[in-house]
Amino acid sequence: MVLQKSVLAGDRLALARLLTEIENDSSAGRKALNALFKHTGKAYLIGVTGATGTGKSTLVSQLALHYRKTAPSRVAIVAVDPTSPFTGGAVLGDRIRMRELSGDAEVFIRSMATRGSLGGLAAATAGVVQALDAAGYELIFIETVGAGQSEVEIAKLAHTTLVVEAPGLGDDVQAIKAGILEIADILVLNKADRPGVEAAERALLGMLKLGHPVVRSLGHHGRTEKSGAAEADLAAKDEWIPPIRRTVATEGKGVAELAETIAAHRAHLEKTGGRQRRERARLQNELEALLQDRLVSGWRKKVGNKEYRHMLDKLLAREISPHQAVETLLDGNLRK
Amino acid sequence: MVLQKSVLAGDRLALARLLTEIENDSSAGRKALNALFKHTGKAYLIGVTGATGTGKSTLVSQLALHYRKTAPSRVAIVAVDPTSPFTGGAVLGDRIRMRELSGDAEVFIRSMATRGSLGGLAAATAGVVQALDAAGYELIFIETVGAGQSEVEIAKLAHTTLVVEAPGLGDDVQAIKAGILEIADILVLNKADRPGVEAAERALLGMLKLGHPVVRSLGHHGRTEKSGAAEADLAAKDEWIPPIRRTVATEGKGVAELAETIAAHRAHLEKTGGRQRRERARLQNELEALLQDRLVSGWRKKVGNKEYRHMLDKLLAREISPHQAVETLLDGNLRK
Repeated sequence: MVLQKSVLAGDRLALARLLTEIENDSSAGRKALNALFKHTGKAYLIGVTGATGTGKSTLVSQLALHYRKTAPSRVAIVAVDPTSPFTGGAVLGDRIRMRELSGDAEVFIRSMATRGSLGGLAAATAGVVQALDAAGYELIFIETVGAGQSEVEIAKLAHTTLVVEAPGLGDDVQAIKAGILEIADILVLNKADRPGVEAAERALLGMLKLGHPVVRSLGHHGRTEKSGAAEADLAAKDEWIPPIRRTVATEGKGVAELAETIAAHRAHLEKTGGRQRRERARLQNELEALLQDRLVSGWRKKVGNKEYRHMLDKLLAREISPHQAVETLLDGNLRK
Repeated sequence: MVLQKSVLAGDRLALARLLTEIENDSSAGRKALNALFKHTGKAYLIGVTGATGTGKSTLVSQLALHYRKTAPSRVAIVAVDPTSPFTGGAVLGDRIRMRELSGDAEVFIRSMATRGSLGGLAAATAGVVQALDAAGYELIFIETVGAGQSEVEIAKLAHTTLVVEAPGLGDDVQAIKAGILEIADILVLNKADRPGVEAAERALLGMLKLGHPVVRSLGHHGRTEKSGAAEADLAAKDEWIPPIRRTVATEGKGVAELAETIAAHRAHLEKTGGRQRRERARLQNELEALLQDRLVSGWRKKVGNKEYRHMLDKLLAREISPHQAVETLLDGNLRK
């Protein structure tokens, strides 16, 4: 019980130790999380995702610096890198970031690489965010490196989700993803001093029209010629239209304006009850991930290794199909 | 039973219909897969993954064209896009590809977007690949858009896995991922006519030394100064050193050489028993994904919706932690 008390008292070393326990899914970590959970729910969570090369890490660092300067906010950054199942791929970006934010006792940075299953990573991320929340960090960035579905799943659990793009990545039609745009509350066009920024913004607008349910409902005039009137119309209906904000994170340009847009989205969520809805969705997600882990590990304990390997041999010999193997394994287990 | 017979007889329409049944995880799809499974295991699977903007789709199209010209191979392409949970994000890339390969009755292209869970996507992909294998496609490309862990998980199940990179994406330190390099059998540096190709290749070599267990074991002289001798040394030990191949896929440059390298890797796998090992790993993976799905859906049927919602309310009120909620739900279920 000492660990969570030290965490609540603001002990950074205890917090770091707790986060490791949570990542390892140890019983000490679980106990501490159970005790700390009632202290959570105060932090504002900002998810940041986007393809590699868009400068996400730099942008998050700049936003963190901005919040530290303008408000006495305690800021945490959780950098999740699900593409590094083997080695600590997040370490490099981390070191660069450290130079800018190191020495600030009100900023806490944690990198997480994959441990085993994807479900495990999502559950560990949720636990880490809860611990930081309980420890009094008011703003928590959840930055996901890469742009696969796992990253999207993790980032979309935040209150405000930023999707970061950059010019020059877009000559491949797949560089801008309709699916990712749908989870964006705010689109950030970073590296906006680069050539191609106009084309990239046009492409983003085009994709928004195709892929975003709210923008699509505006029809063809939605965001370009008559966007003012249409946006006012939607604002009256309590709809949030994901705006596009340009930044040059390496020079800090556009960062203050981006922070204002985040504040506007936050105000919108508070007004419309959206924060509560997202909170519920996040907790439901977490519950389901934990249930899944527990069910599978419980089942694996019951089924003998020999039985399992035998089934695998039959599968390899094509004597039985994967579905038939599952039926047999589950039936056998039910009979016991 | 008509569906799988038509598929075995080479009916493309029946095959397309079956793939839809598999994607929907329908009982008709499962039945057909059970019947078709004994006809699988003949196809050679080539996984292709890498970050957005590397030109993966063009490269896969060019490789498919190459195989169609040089050998009378029936080729299938399964393009998996886990970043499009909502809309068909793979459609755009698909249309472009269609222009090059359309009209060729021996080529079958299927795009898959996410349906529900990640586990569901992996299972659906495995089923689709089995159906194509049974239908007589000798070479099957499994192309994953994006470079998240889910994509890596799917691509690494192939016999030969290509990881595609391109110059100019690498100014972000995260553009090249040690974790992804570890699953590469062949590294492809596409868009090799662009500036920065030398630097990108040096970076790849550096990352390989850090991140690849075999290359790392060669020490510092492994791949550069004395690579010839070291490679011969390893070849004697039946180790495969992932080579780097340059391509300009839009012009078809380097594609024939890449196909030769794929053939060399295939010969290596056959010689060392690696193909059988990968086969086993793939089937085990599939079995585990199916088991997980079945356990969770079985449990959800047993637990009442009311009980589940009640637990969610308590969670939202912070009366109980996620771990405690799981314990309560599982215990309650066991008592029944």
